[in-house]
Amino acid sequence: MQNVDYIIRADFLLTMEGDLSVIKDGAVAVTGSDIIDTGTFSDISKQYTSENLLSGKNKAVFPGLINTHTHAAMVYFRGLADDLPLMDWLQNHIWPAEGKWMSEEFVGDAVELACLEMLKAGVTTYTDMYFFQNAAGKKLEKIGMRGVLGAGVIDFPFTGYAASVEDYFTNAERHINNWKGSELVYPCIAPHATYTCGPDNYKRSNDISEKYNVPIHTHLAETQFEVGECQRRYGKTPVEYLEGMGLLSERLSAAHCVWLTDNEIELLARRKVGVAHCIESNLKLASGFAPVAKMLKAGIKIGLGTDGAASNNDLSILGEMSTAAKVHKAVSGDPTVLDSKTALLMATRYGAEILGLGDKIGSIKPGKRADLVIADLDQPHLLPIYDIYSHITYCMRPSDIETVMVNGKILVENGKPTTMDEAEIMDKARVWQEKIKS
Amino acid sequence: MQNVDYIIRADFLLTMEGDLSVIKDGAVAVTGSDIIDTGTFSDISKQYTSENLLSGKNKAVFPGLINTHTHAAMVYFRGLADDLPLMDWLQNHIWPAEGKWMSEEFVGDAVELACLEMLKAGVTTYTDMYFFQNAAGKKLEKIGMRGVLGAGVIDFPFTGYAASVEDYFTNAERHINNWKGSELVYPCIAPHATYTCGPDNYKRSNDISEKYNVPIHTHLAETQFEVGECQRRYGKTPVEYLEGMGLLSERLSAAHCVWLTDNEIELLARRKVGVAHCIESNLKLASGFAPVAKMLKAGIKIGLGTDGAASNNDLSILGEMSTAAKVHKAVSGDPTVLDSKTALLMATRYGAEILGLGDKIGSIKPGKRADLVIADLDQPHLLPIYDIYSHITYCMRPSDIETVMVNGKILVENGKPTTMDEAEIMDKARVWQEKIKS
Repeated sequence: MQNVDYIIRADFLLTMEGDLSVIKDGAVAVTGSDIIDTGTFSDISKQYTSENLLSGKNKAVFPGLINTHTHAAMVYFRGLADDLPLMDWLQNHIWPAEGKWMSEEFVGDAVELACLEMLKAGVTTYTDMYFFQNAAGKKLEKIGMRGVLGAGVIDFPFTGYAASVEDYFTNAERHINNWKGSELVYPCIAPHATYTCGPDNYKRSNDISEKYNVPIHTHLAETQFEVGECQRRYGKTPVEYLEGMGLLSERLSAAHCVWLTDNEIELLARRKVGVAHCIESNLKLASGFAPVAKMLKAGIKIGLGTDGAASNNDLSILGEMSTAAKVHKAVSGDPTVLDSKTALLMATRYGAEILGLGDKIGSIKPGKRADLVIADLDQPHLLPIYDIYSHITYCMRPSDIETVMVNGKILVENGKPTTMDEAEIMDKARVWQEKIKS
Repeated sequence: MQNVDYIIRADFLLTMEGDLSVIKDGAVAVTGSDIIDTGTFSDISKQYTSENLLSGKNKAVFPGLINTHTHAAMVYFRGLADDLPLMDWLQNHIWPAEGKWMSEEFVGDAVELACLEMLKAGVTTYTDMYFFQNAAGKKLEKIGMRGVLGAGVIDFPFTGYAASVEDYFTNAERHINNWKGSELVYPCIAPHATYTCGPDNYKRSNDISEKYNVPIHTHLAETQFEVGECQRRYGKTPVEYLEGMGLLSERLSAAHCVWLTDNEIELLARRKVGVAHCIESNLKLASGFAPVAKMLKAGIKIGLGTDGAASNNDLSILGEMSTAAKVHKAVSGDPTVLDSKTALLMATRYGAEILGLGDKIGSIKPGKRADLVIADLDQPHLLPIYDIYSHITYCMRPSDIETVMVNGKILVENGKPTTMDEAEIMDKARVWQEKIKS
């Protein structure tokens, strides 16, 4: 008998490995940061003992959800401006607010609120594109949450963060050197978009990504405006523009990918580019419907992203799963598209793979890190149960997430954070709210 | 000073009347089943006293949400079959299950679970189309919830409920006579759809609706299949078919209305037909995108509906608000379409109006019934707050609903039902689950 730190037992264990079959009355053995074994509780309890048996009736265990695209600190702009045309929203509301408040303190405080919201909703890893990622990284380390933190790059200075374009790269390399090798914080470089980054900055970002072997993250083909602007400036679509600079590779995860031709879908698949699909943001900003069914068919790995809370307006991946699974049925006219298993794969294993973390997280597999959630199924809106995948995709709510473990540590217990002071974080948000409103 | 049963105080009071301006630190005075007065807390407390002051920090009060189209009892088939083509889903899964289990006992038990889920999510009224509505009515009376219960009519017998077509009408008239004049249960007649009801049954349903002055509720133009079938059988679109029989009137609320021509939109507006928009069901069954922006522009009153939980898969109107407000922006390519105020109007006042209950419910107005909800804003996902309408539409979750009042009685307190035994209802659902699975 081997002693382990935790044995986690549940009626339904979804490992998201193999043929995706559900282990009934399953169990996971965890020691340190790692998953040691999985199986039926009967089998696991013959091989392992633990002082910490997490068990209860009517529970499901599945991998921690992965948010593959957000701007976490923008949570402080949640609902600041809605129902507006994109450029009005961006130029008259979001950019001025960012310009006014951007600072290390702002990012550090805001990221805590975002992490609190995400963890309580079962999100254990997020990919970010923003500034002052060092402040975010310190918070993640303190909280114990996992993140791929992309240091933003754009073609013009940003008061308080980058006095010149050179500063973006200085900041990015410092960020990479700071966090490379960290267990929880994965540094990344994030050139913003084809309409804000010229060839020099894209190529230089890619060189840094290659040099340090870190992921590169960008917005791609989000709106028709972007496609038109790219064609006007470079005579190329956004995908062609990146292809021409050698940006399309397995290291790249591209957010949105709404406006793609069939040939571009094939090209992204061939180049093994990962896609972060942000359905709720694409809907709310009227960006369009990404060709998700076609991309999946072409073999592109697609994760789910919330985008920033200013355009969503929350950071729940459960919500993205449900919305994506439904919307793409109507878009394609085919109710068999994006079934509930695929939705959960996108939210877990596929998400991990597009971030280059497929060997570490995304499924409940011996040798991977113990990032997982326990959901409480004892809820009127989750009864009856015929198919647990269907319930997680179409019915489950953040309030059903009971326990969240990241890297073998419990960060949420009975719905309450264990490493964060919830009241203090909410009070701080109210202080910022009054400043931002004024 | 006038003594009242309740004074309800909140930071944000949304009456959904007048110019929709928010009353900060507002209050509602309630006596018996009725709203007596609304205003600032300062004003209300000068005129009224009460032993029951419902008050607290960071709360919002708004009208109870109205679900304008569901088949409540189908909650027992939630997740029984998903991600399937419509006819496969209906003919090979849903209809056989209904045929096997349909009974007064099934409907009564299932409706309780549906009401529990809806009430906890702030839904205070629902419109239903199903069989054995007497069983549903008895449960509503016991619980204290409001419902417009439509006795279904179709062209063929239904084992256990209607041995012949005649029985649908006998049952419907008995149902109407049973409940006419009830404070909570409004009887209604509900011919199913253009592909299941011939002219005789539609006309006879309409005569009964006229004779008793009760609403009539039907599915209309839900799928392209339905439009094609109607044209094949009658040489008319579904809207033309109903128009030809004189069905289009203010008494009619029509669920779905996905496939309409511009002329049909104008006709529905002229005839004052109400529309129950069921966005999540339309997406999940790949039915299509209803022309909601156009219908609103034409002046059609549109409420929101969940449809049955077998095609959604929950009964949350907050979810419908968020999905509808987002999807129609992308469908129309215009992010200003269906703003957050409109979404809440659809979920409250517009919903009441299409059910013929505009004088009784749908807004917080002196003289109307006291159907309202108190939401707790003290949540990470609801911070910061700049615009309460935005938060209710885009961020609020059923778990944020703290108190629910229907007809002046508190039915949910601190998220827990006061007139229902939650554990018993969930146990009963599990017993039915095992039967239905077998």
